[in-house]
Amino acid sequence: VSVDSPTKQKFSPGIFLRYDCRASEEELMRIETQRLTLRLENPFTIAHGTTTERQNVLVRICDGERTGVGEAAVVPYYKETPERVINALTDPAVVVALGDDARLLHDALDRLPPSESTAARAALDMALHDLWGQRLGQPLYRLWGLNPARAPVSSFTIALDTDEAAYRDRLRAAPPFSLYKIKLGSGAWQTDLDIARIARETTGAQIAVDANCAWRADDALQIIPRLAALDVAYIEQPIGRDDHDGWRALRDHRAADWPPLMADESAQNAQDVLALNGLADGVNIKLAKCGGLRAALGMVTLARQLGMRAMIGCMVESSVAVTAASHLAPLVDFADLDGNLLLSNDPYRGTRVINGQIHLPDAPGLGVNPVAE
Amino acid sequence: VSVDSPTKQKFSPGIFLRYDCRASEEELMRIETQRLTLRLENPFTIAHGTTTERQNVLVRICDGERTGVGEAAVVPYYKETPERVINALTDPAVVVALGDDARLLHDALDRLPPSESTAARAALDMALHDLWGQRLGQPLYRLWGLNPARAPVSSFTIALDTDEAAYRDRLRAAPPFSLYKIKLGSGAWQTDLDIARIARETTGAQIAVDANCAWRADDALQIIPRLAALDVAYIEQPIGRDDHDGWRALRDHRAADWPPLMADESAQNAQDVLALNGLADGVNIKLAKCGGLRAALGMVTLARQLGMRAMIGCMVESSVAVTAASHLAPLVDFADLDGNLLLSNDPYRGTRVINGQIHLPDAPGLGVNPVAE
Repeated sequence: VSVDSPTKQKFSPGIFLRYDCRASEEELMRIETQRLTLRLENPFTIAHGTTTERQNVLVRICDGERTGVGEAAVVPYYKETPERVINALTDPAVVVALGDDARLLHDALDRLPPSESTAARAALDMALHDLWGQRLGQPLYRLWGLNPARAPVSSFTIALDTDEAAYRDRLRAAPPFSLYKIKLGSGAWQTDLDIARIARETTGAQIAVDANCAWRADDALQIIPRLAALDVAYIEQPIGRDDHDGWRALRDHRAADWPPLMADESAQNAQDVLALNGLADGVNIKLAKCGGLRAALGMVTLARQLGMRAMIGCMVESSVAVTAASHLAPLVDFADLDGNLLLSNDPYRGTRVINGQIHLPDAPGLGVNPVAE
Repeated sequence: VSVDSPTKQKFSPGIFLRYDCRASEEELMRIETQRLTLRLENPFTIAHGTTTERQNVLVRICDGERTGVGEAAVVPYYKETPERVINALTDPAVVVALGDDARLLHDALDRLPPSESTAARAALDMALHDLWGQRLGQPLYRLWGLNPARAPVSSFTIALDTDEAAYRDRLRAAPPFSLYKIKLGSGAWQTDLDIARIARETTGAQIAVDANCAWRADDALQIIPRLAALDVAYIEQPIGRDDHDGWRALRDHRAADWPPLMADESAQNAQDVLALNGLADGVNIKLAKCGGLRAALGMVTLARQLGMRAMIGCMVESSVAVTAASHLAPLVDFADLDGNLLLSNDPYRGTRVINGQIHLPDAPGLGVNPVAE
């Protein structure tokens, strides 16, 4: 999961902006948006800041018989705001783009108006995929020909903490996953190494680390060999988002025993994957960054053709967006699908991640259902 | 359509090499191969040679209830022989790879043993896609979310002929397509230009040209501006398969009014698409070259992410392989799906290409059926 500093604004949950824009008798689709306040069970700290609450946006698309749902993760780091997302979702061109036949998924996606909000685009893409899967009567992973048993385990993310005793307690209190993703970026690479060592001592599970852009290249070259000695599964985003010189420096000094270096903030979309070819070992793909399932599938395909690893990640999101992402899990090497597990008020049920095992739903489409009130 | 010099060997059609390799009770799939002699209505000449007959191979995979079918195009230019194809198809590792659940398409494809025969790989990939689509009860294009009405027109290929009057007659006798693909490669670019001019004068339809590797870069730089003046839709494979210096020379001299330069022989697979990035304007994707529908979808995805055009083509193939390729047509800019139209003994019916309009079948899977005896 990726989190960021919370927005200052507060919204009431459950406000529906319902509108009906049928331009003609042929246009059958209706669309509605809903602001969603997600509360974190515990405050969550990473290199970018501390979060206690998130304001995401749900979108529902109805073809008269079935309703598809999608979610926009409002991540300040990616310049998203609820207003920007809702503006994008309520663009009158959107409902025209949806067309009148849920089977024609790519036509609808192709017609969506351009928007700066990749999170809004991702929400529409998820809702259209959900509707499409329901229309064809199959879960998304079946429509992609995937084996749900091939999903890797998901990691569980352990936030930053400067208090060693509290950190050990938190790690011990975490659900018993077989892989923990340790957030680093305390401000000094030596402290980061200490945190990783404490994690390594405290749990018998595998660990991976995520620096969230925290290190300069020379710091990264100090800590990475030491992390390699701790046998970490992968190192995510060791250096700055746009620090391609840094990626090159790491590439030039790469040793055979280094774990895979996975780009996250540096790898938002397919163009970034191309730019990272030969630099990063893999990419962490997230629907809110790239604009949805179609773009994510394209990134996986591209990464594979470039010989790169692929990972599926999430933001602080409800079961809607996490379930959508999880349908891609059988295609990737690593999964980090715990965003909904951190919430105290997840409004949906879908994919269950139980001690790291990913259980995809077998209902058509995304396979999510609202939690009964 | 691409053809090549015919093989010298003759085979009786309809010989079934049937074998049952169940390794255990759990292995449900059966596989069989069939040699197929395809006769061309008329001898067909291109830069690589003249063809009157082709020896392709069909493969059928049965899960006990349904049967998927695929076809291997035996194209001498790509070093295929019926023996090599049949050796690859009858590898005992193949039936193990098929597994026991037709829904798990990618598991089966991932498990297929490596083979030098991309045509055999393509045949297995088609048969597995056919079975998968039948198992899910949907045509392939539906499982890809595509709109069958979005397919471009298919071209009809006009073979080389040195006799001008005969050539004009042949063009006039061709079915009334709106796009003809004119085969060039007579041996001299000036003659090739004459042929294109004759075609341009003789038909009111659009024309595209295919040089099948015939020109050196300096010849290509002479003829291409002149072809541009004839308003050709695209120019396929102007220079040699491995002539990347030639592609670079064309790129460096490219004028704004040139039609798209499409790589065919130079673009067999995804690695070739990456190597042609910034050199060719697009790629002609064929199942027999790349190894099937999954690889072809990957090539389309990659080409789009690189900003390249995509085209779907075929070999001298029956309706099995041509129909398989046609399901990708809604994704591409150009289609050349006439391989089965040249045959006097097409053993299957599937996609119908009527005067260039591509009509995809709405039956599940590939949607092909044997012609009644």
